[in-house]
Amino acid sequence: MEFVKGLKQKEVIEISDILSNDLKGKEVVLRGAVHTIRDMSEFSFVVLRKYEGLVQCVFVNDKVNNVSIKNLREGSTIEVKGMVHPEDRAPNGFEIILSDIKVLSEPAKETTMPIPISKWKLNTSLETKLSLRPIALRNVRERAIFKIQEGIVRAFRDFLYSQHFTEVRTPKIVAGNAEGGANVFKLEYFGKKAFLAQSPQFYKQTMVGVYDRVFEAAPVFRAEKHNTTRHLNEYTSLDFEMGYIDGFEDIMDMEAAMLSYVFEFLSKEYAKEVKLLGITLPDTSNIPAVRFDEAKRLVSEKYDRKIKNPYDLEPEEEVLIGRYFKEEFNSDFVFVTHYPSKKRPFYAMDDPSDTKFTLSFDLLFKGMEVTTGGQRIHTYEDQVAKMVARGMDPADFSDYLMIHKHGMPPHGGLGIGLERITMKLLDEQNVRETTLFPRDVSRLEP
Amino acid sequence: MEFVKGLKQKEVIEISDILSNDLKGKEVVLRGAVHTIRDMSEFSFVVLRKYEGLVQCVFVNDKVNNVSIKNLREGSTIEVKGMVHPEDRAPNGFEIILSDIKVLSEPAKETTMPIPISKWKLNTSLETKLSLRPIALRNVRERAIFKIQEGIVRAFRDFLYSQHFTEVRTPKIVAGNAEGGANVFKLEYFGKKAFLAQSPQFYKQTMVGVYDRVFEAAPVFRAEKHNTTRHLNEYTSLDFEMGYIDGFEDIMDMEAAMLSYVFEFLSKEYAKEVKLLGITLPDTSNIPAVRFDEAKRLVSEKYDRKIKNPYDLEPEEEVLIGRYFKEEFNSDFVFVTHYPSKKRPFYAMDDPSDTKFTLSFDLLFKGMEVTTGGQRIHTYEDQVAKMVARGMDPADFSDYLMIHKHGMPPHGGLGIGLERITMKLLDEQNVRETTLFPRDVSRLEP
Repeated sequence: MEFVKGLKQKEVIEISDILSNDLKGKEVVLRGAVHTIRDMSEFSFVVLRKYEGLVQCVFVNDKVNNVSIKNLREGSTIEVKGMVHPEDRAPNGFEIILSDIKVLSEPAKETTMPIPISKWKLNTSLETKLSLRPIALRNVRERAIFKIQEGIVRAFRDFLYSQHFTEVRTPKIVAGNAEGGANVFKLEYFGKKAFLAQSPQFYKQTMVGVYDRVFEAAPVFRAEKHNTTRHLNEYTSLDFEMGYIDGFEDIMDMEAAMLSYVFEFLSKEYAKEVKLLGITLPDTSNIPAVRFDEAKRLVSEKYDRKIKNPYDLEPEEEVLIGRYFKEEFNSDFVFVTHYPSKKRPFYAMDDPSDTKFTLSFDLLFKGMEVTTGGQRIHTYEDQVAKMVARGMDPADFSDYLMIHKHGMPPHGGLGIGLERITMKLLDEQNVRETTLFPRDVSRLEP
Repeated sequence: MEFVKGLKQKEVIEISDILSNDLKGKEVVLRGAVHTIRDMSEFSFVVLRKYEGLVQCVFVNDKVNNVSIKNLREGSTIEVKGMVHPEDRAPNGFEIILSDIKVLSEPAKETTMPIPISKWKLNTSLETKLSLRPIALRNVRERAIFKIQEGIVRAFRDFLYSQHFTEVRTPKIVAGNAEGGANVFKLEYFGKKAFLAQSPQFYKQTMVGVYDRVFEAAPVFRAEKHNTTRHLNEYTSLDFEMGYIDGFEDIMDMEAAMLSYVFEFLSKEYAKEVKLLGITLPDTSNIPAVRFDEAKRLVSEKYDRKIKNPYDLEPEEEVLIGRYFKEEFNSDFVFVTHYPSKKRPFYAMDDPSDTKFTLSFDLLFKGMEVTTGGQRIHTYEDQVAKMVARGMDPADFSDYLMIHKHGMPPHGGLGIGLERITMKLLDEQNVRETTLFPRDVSRLEP
């Protein structure tokens, strides 16, 4: 009988092994993909692509062992043996003088790369980049984008664990429709009508009744019909929801603390990618908070712009609010609070001092909404009353109302669009740049 | 202008604050839900439910401040002030002698709990428990189940980060269908035909070409028509995929090491829940691995059972294989390797020494499949040939085949059913017990 006992020690090493040990002059074995081959007439550079970065290998003669440089192809994966040689001009400050090559796999016969992935920046249209996404992501700059995104999610989770939040996994196939409106995907579910979840709203509130504080980082689905630079039909929502709050300000405080942790984490754990992408990490220690109506008035005055609709914020107004707080307070972020009730869902708590407004907020980052949050109604009577006032039938929401009926703490929470916050952090112009495999009205593949 | 600066210090404290500091005889302020009230004639116990556990509060007179014990209701949330008093018979070894109560919220008027959530174990049918899930989860034992599940996912991720895996987020709305078969949910997507992803298979392989090693913990969707104790229509799949492998054994080694880490992590970080649920953490340092055909022969001989179909494993056979390896090797786990090609998907690599079988495996845990994994075909020519041999049109998979065309390292991976592994760890009889909000043929709510 064979037994599986866990990881075996292997001869093959990684870039970090070379950097953290003094292996100068030593022989090492590495594996990687042939990223590019450069013929220098006297010798050739074979640049290996590994998850950590690039490794310059020097192919001194025509042949190394039995492999001829003429037969080596970009896109092959190889195992190389060679001596570590310090070289300041090489990535990571070293190169490998090859003494042995073993080909592990090869691309299809007689194919060439449709885009030059080894270039620093892919100078192709977004359309081409997305159509060739499986290959385009092999570009060093492209893949750094999604390492940064990984870092944001890791830090989000780590911070919330430290604040006693519990991670939950809520269903994506649902019977009801939390956010209202028409932008919901319909599904056939064994003869029943079902939807894809637009948000984990009902479930995260439910779980506050169980664990006091919860979070989830998971996909949500919106059947938005407009193809804009900031909308996706499937995106990752970073949600948290917390009980026993004194007011919706507690939620903003938690988000500000979380964001500070995230950017600190990126500066430490993702320093390589932060540098590679030239990211300036924003300051979140002092984020201005302004009422919705006041924000509208401020930009209307400063930028001489008429207020068309006092109950809605147009994307252009968001941009101007972002500009105002950058100019006046040097802040990339601004909390806009007290959104009008008619623009917020039925579970939003109205401001008791003026019920035309809600105890809610958006967070704008460089002039774009990246978070929506607020306090929720927690009593059964208030929630039923607001549903009825909106012409909704509480009987349609009996599972949800179960939590209010049997007692909920004062609570609230928020949802953050992961792809959007990544987009603004990287100063990208289109959210598809920071979405691994975007889904929009016209794009369902790859 | 107001500014948000991060977390504010609050007077309210948590159970862990009391346990980690010596607060005996000190006055503290706590918030929680009224879990149960017990009238002891001379005084009353008011038991608070908090995310960390229960707190026994002693309500000495009829009234504390202005709140009468007669008006205090289960399901209310309250803020209490009182003195910490050591009491061995109370949860966590202390109680609070109340001097002040403030009611934060109340349940609906004239309602009572439909199930006794403060009982140690809910002695109701699974059907009732699931219908009342939003409330039933407030039971201390029920919520411990999903803390354990949180711990499994955390440890899965932490271990893989330490092994240089990158976390990816792949789309759940897809155009193609990786696993084949009829069990796929259809979706209307702006006039196009779309599906819910049965697995992240194509995308995780794609991302191996980018990051060498990747993982994802996310929902997958299977339109299984059979309502069994082990099937769900939506579940969480813990997937990883790794490049530059020497063989599929590397994947089993990685899984065994990961599982050891998971159970070690649970014993340290979730000791309270492990104890509360009476979990015996299994040993994974020495997992037997047996060929599919050999496993069938062994149980056929030992348990005197005819082999009906040499190319398939029935659930009953899985149970017997689990029993065999428990009896013969005292192992809760067994890897079954070399599954027949006709039972594995088109991307599975055949065993070159006998192409009727594949370089693949399942992991059985107490007689149930909890993982499916294996090596994948990495060359374009081999992948196209296997598709054609199966009557598939490679043109339907051009986006997927892009990765093989332009070069992939030898690679493989696996998918683990989170709810199933939790179920077997807890010795539950139905996977719905370990699913937060299960989706099955007849259950779409809550």
